[in-house]
Amino acid sequence: MATSLFHDSLTVRTQSHDYPIIITEDATSKDSSMAKQVAPYIKGCQVLIVTNDTVAPLYLQALEDELAEQFTVKVCVLPDGEQYKNQTSIDQIYDALMAEHFNRDVTLIALGGGVVGDMTGFAAASFMRGVNFIQIPTTLLSQVDSSVGGKTGINHAQGKNMIGAFWQPQMVLADMSTLKTLPARELSAGVAEIIKYALIMDEAFLTWLEENLTAMMALDLAVLGEAVKRCCQYKADVVAQDERESGVRALLNFGHTFGHVIETHQGYGNWLHGEAVAAGMMQAAKLSQKIGWLTLDEVERIERVLMLGNLPTKPPAIDVQTALDLMGHDKKVKHGQIRLILLKSIGSAVVTNDFDNDLLLEVLSQHSA
Amino acid sequence: MATSLFHDSLTVRTQSHDYPIIITEDATSKDSSMAKQVAPYIKGCQVLIVTNDTVAPLYLQALEDELAEQFTVKVCVLPDGEQYKNQTSIDQIYDALMAEHFNRDVTLIALGGGVVGDMTGFAAASFMRGVNFIQIPTTLLSQVDSSVGGKTGINHAQGKNMIGAFWQPQMVLADMSTLKTLPARELSAGVAEIIKYALIMDEAFLTWLEENLTAMMALDLAVLGEAVKRCCQYKADVVAQDERESGVRALLNFGHTFGHVIETHQGYGNWLHGEAVAAGMMQAAKLSQKIGWLTLDEVERIERVLMLGNLPTKPPAIDVQTALDLMGHDKKVKHGQIRLILLKSIGSAVVTNDFDNDLLLEVLSQHSA
Repeated sequence: MATSLFHDSLTVRTQSHDYPIIITEDATSKDSSMAKQVAPYIKGCQVLIVTNDTVAPLYLQALEDELAEQFTVKVCVLPDGEQYKNQTSIDQIYDALMAEHFNRDVTLIALGGGVVGDMTGFAAASFMRGVNFIQIPTTLLSQVDSSVGGKTGINHAQGKNMIGAFWQPQMVLADMSTLKTLPARELSAGVAEIIKYALIMDEAFLTWLEENLTAMMALDLAVLGEAVKRCCQYKADVVAQDERESGVRALLNFGHTFGHVIETHQGYGNWLHGEAVAAGMMQAAKLSQKIGWLTLDEVERIERVLMLGNLPTKPPAIDVQTALDLMGHDKKVKHGQIRLILLKSIGSAVVTNDFDNDLLLEVLSQHSA
Repeated sequence: MATSLFHDSLTVRTQSHDYPIIITEDATSKDSSMAKQVAPYIKGCQVLIVTNDTVAPLYLQALEDELAEQFTVKVCVLPDGEQYKNQTSIDQIYDALMAEHFNRDVTLIALGGGVVGDMTGFAAASFMRGVNFIQIPTTLLSQVDSSVGGKTGINHAQGKNMIGAFWQPQMVLADMSTLKTLPARELSAGVAEIIKYALIMDEAFLTWLEENLTAMMALDLAVLGEAVKRCCQYKADVVAQDERESGVRALLNFGHTFGHVIETHQGYGNWLHGEAVAAGMMQAAKLSQKIGWLTLDEVERIERVLMLGNLPTKPPAIDVQTALDLMGHDKKVKHGQIRLILLKSIGSAVVTNDFDNDLLLEVLSQHSA
């Protein structure tokens, strides 16, 4: 039985250091527990586990108890939700670190989804000008998206991810068995990012997804593990070329400029990030088709695979001028012109501002309501 | 006349990039204004000048007006003082950046002392995960101390400089003529850091200071410029070896562990940082003498040069246990043992925890009141 469990790993190379992503489906079992897998990567004797009130009841106690046999372990439980990805939560982490007199040797462990990972990473980047951290992503989205790249941060009231740092973890443990407790909407949100990699980088992977997405949605952990590994490898390759996003890394934001408009307009936390990205990718695909790069058939193929992942393919009703204004706050804007990531074909993306603005307005005026 | 003005520069090499420190005494004149000197180092078209309400009336208008001929320039004026070196001020900088829709191309300019520089640097490090910044230090302390090393950050209610990042400026403009408007206490505070370099690195520089300190205190700008350049070069050499302070860079904190106790106990802003470091260096020198490394004559020589700089040589009355507790929050603590930077001789410092704790208690029990 044990031999059939999925267990794989890859190494991510960054400017500061290399680190492993361990992908497994058995870290909630005792023999190869989360604690056993992360302990070798904890350098000092101090550990602060940061999690949220949804994940804590599921995995915190076992991790905390087992690590406490070796380390001084403290816990900071934050409220769950993108709307808490802000300075107040960061201050709670700082306060927990200061209350324990923790110092530069502390290791922060992010136990949770992307929000917990982003905030814990930024707290690690900024506490005493930088301490170690480890990620245990418990959502599909964070397993494929936040495990690689070192982007950490929080939202500003006027814009998403406006405050942050590039800061790399010491290791990432992606345990597929945590997906068993993940709400269906959040599983889909992760699938959106997985589809993104196929669309921007590899048409063959899109074919693989068309064949395997049903098994993934039915929680076949080995298939999920394979998808996570492929996406982490795609992203690691891109980030190795361009850690600080001056070039090719920007392509990973495919669907995100449109998606940010949806998230900001609806208020953080109402649309899941992955849902907004899914609808945003459809908008980007439609604009790519209007420009003449994609065929209508290809746009429909993208729509079908998103629907296979139970994902929204249309944005909510947002006034066109409002959408343009919100795009103006997006980090992908250069010198006041809106630059977007569009598809030349399936598997090939470009950053461009070379399109007729009227076509963008057409796309922005199409919505679900 | 113009040929006699001090003008010199050095290049600081860091892991991310090299940058120049330009040391001048004429940047308040029109021909070689601050704006003219910094403009070549501004990459995009957006500039946010961050300053405080003491420095703004002196230098802001000229800098702002002249830069506005070339760039979109906005200003963020913070209240003056170490007690405002906190998250609230950082939030004001973020808000100013967001209100202007500034993006990744923005350059932040820190116009002011170390507090303005540290906060502006941290805001630059964390806005959109890192944007460019330029320093125009207007105090002697910040010219010698904050110009090199990339340390940026803010205080936490429970400890100084607990939140921050390593982030390097694009250039530093140290204009000696700004020292003409500097209060006498702040000039002395800068002298304390200058003396520090002599004590930890170069006995010959201490002799130079004994000969030149009177001219410096009388605002001989060329002599001040020479002292600033020497200190920046000492620090640049150390930082090049050890940017993230895993080794030799820690020596630059000579006097700072004791000094932090004074600053924290008295409340930020009541003792100037340099004053606290001066008294702290005397405590470190006395402990070095009790251990048997310095002679009493050498301790008295250090005391004399500090007095030449009008600096305090004794800490205020602080209960010994309180002082020890406050030391426990200092970043120089490793594995719970107090590690201090002490002098083996004048010009040679070491980080050590190899001393009799009773000697430390003796030093901590000696104070001015």
